[in-house]
Amino acid sequence: MIDNYMIKFEELRVKTPKREILVNITDDISRIVRNSAVNEGVCRIFVPHTTAGITINENADPAVVIDIINFLKILIPQSGGQYSFRHREGNSDAHIKSSLTGPSLDILIHNGKLVLGTWQGIMFAEYDGPRNRRVFIQVQGE
Amino acid sequence: MIDNYMIKFEELRVKTPKREILVNITDDISRIVRNSAVNEGVCRIFVPHTTAGITINENADPAVVIDIINFLKILIPQSGGQYSFRHREGNSDAHIKSSLTGPSLDILIHNGKLVLGTWQGIMFAEYDGPRNRRVFIQVQGE
Amino acid sequence: MIDNYMIKFEELRVKTPKREILVNITDDISRIVRNSAVNEGVCRIFVPHTTAGITINENADPAVVIDIINFLKILIPQSGGQYSFRHREGNSDAHIKSSLTGPSLDILIHNGKLVLGTWQGIMFAEYDGPRNRRVFIQVQGE
Repeated sequence: MIDNYMIKFEELRVKTPKREILVNITDDISRIVRNSAVNEGVCRIFVPHTTAGITINENADPAVVIDIINFLKILIPQSGGQYSFRHREGNSDAHIKSSLTGPSLDILIHNGKLVLGTWQGIMFAEYDGPRNRRVFIQVQGE
Repeated sequence: MIDNYMIKFEELRVKTPKREILVNITDDISRIVRNSAVNEGVCRIFVPHTTAGITINENADPAVVIDIINFLKILIPQSGGQYSFRHREGNSDAHIKSSLTGPSLDILIHNGKLVLGTWQGIMFAEYDGPRNRRVFIQVQGE
Repeated sequence: MIDNYMIKFEELRVKTPKREILVNITDDISRIVRNSAVNEGVCRIFVPHTTAGITINENADPAVVIDIINFLKILIPQSGGQYSFRHREGNSDAHIKSSLTGPSLDILIHNGKLVLGTWQGIMFAEYDGPRNRRVFIQVQGE
């Protein structure tokens, strides 16, 4: 039986400075989890945008996130490359990248802390900035 | 302490009309969440197929989902392009796309509603139709 | 009201034999779920590495996972192809693949069993092996 179960909903604002960038939001998420006082549970992150996403990748060498974002620019070019995009806003590439990295992520909470590997950072993936973006966070547990 | 916690399992059927298509299932998922009467919680969606997936993308301009599906056809061609697929069923492209968009998605429930952005729709991603597909939904919360 | 709710954290070790391989860990995950005695709930899988991931795909014809891993090698070459990677460890391709397949997965538990389709297996995705890897599993439910 649980008598200290809780669920909490929070919103985070992220200002993205460029069209394509991975913004490290690990500290913001860690703070929200710490403040929730949940010991065992889950932190769900959800991005309510269709030209952005959420991912986890290396937080140590800043070249890694640059390689990821720049390689995706070549793999899925804004121009469409061989393919002529029908959507007239010029951001179909961003919609495709959004579906590939995905809008949601679950991170485990164990012994009161987010369970992340040594090199893992939580990254807001902007594919059509600069914009003011929102991230929803739900912390659930006991 | 929670005394109105619940967990509910549902199944949805999706009939896909083409080999590759994103089918908007937002209304079906919303109805299931509404009927569950969960106020704060999560709606988990799981696709039990290896040549399909689940994604979220724009529900406004229908050109967006067409661009996504058509661009993926060029990026990961059914023929394999430079690469000769070993799997003899002729649908290795669909298996690859399934792993890239993923089989599962968590959508937050807050104040009795699915938390989705203005332009977000929940899309069943068919990569090897037309078929009769299944989607499992679990609504959990209080 | 729930009086038999539980949450349990486990760790699994996976030894990967090659640089790029999908390793089927379904039996290990099934055993953990069975031992938890959870009847209705969720099994969360989280990979704490930035050059690996977790995915679900076909467990029947072994050619499928070979096609997936080999096609990704051409799509996202270790050399970078047209793009010169800045990260000096020679594994930027693995970081990109990790963000595309993702580090986490939720699998539903219904009637005491993992809900998986007939052909679905849970695969640890190694993109920069051989290595000794860790997988975190959280089983939650009633």
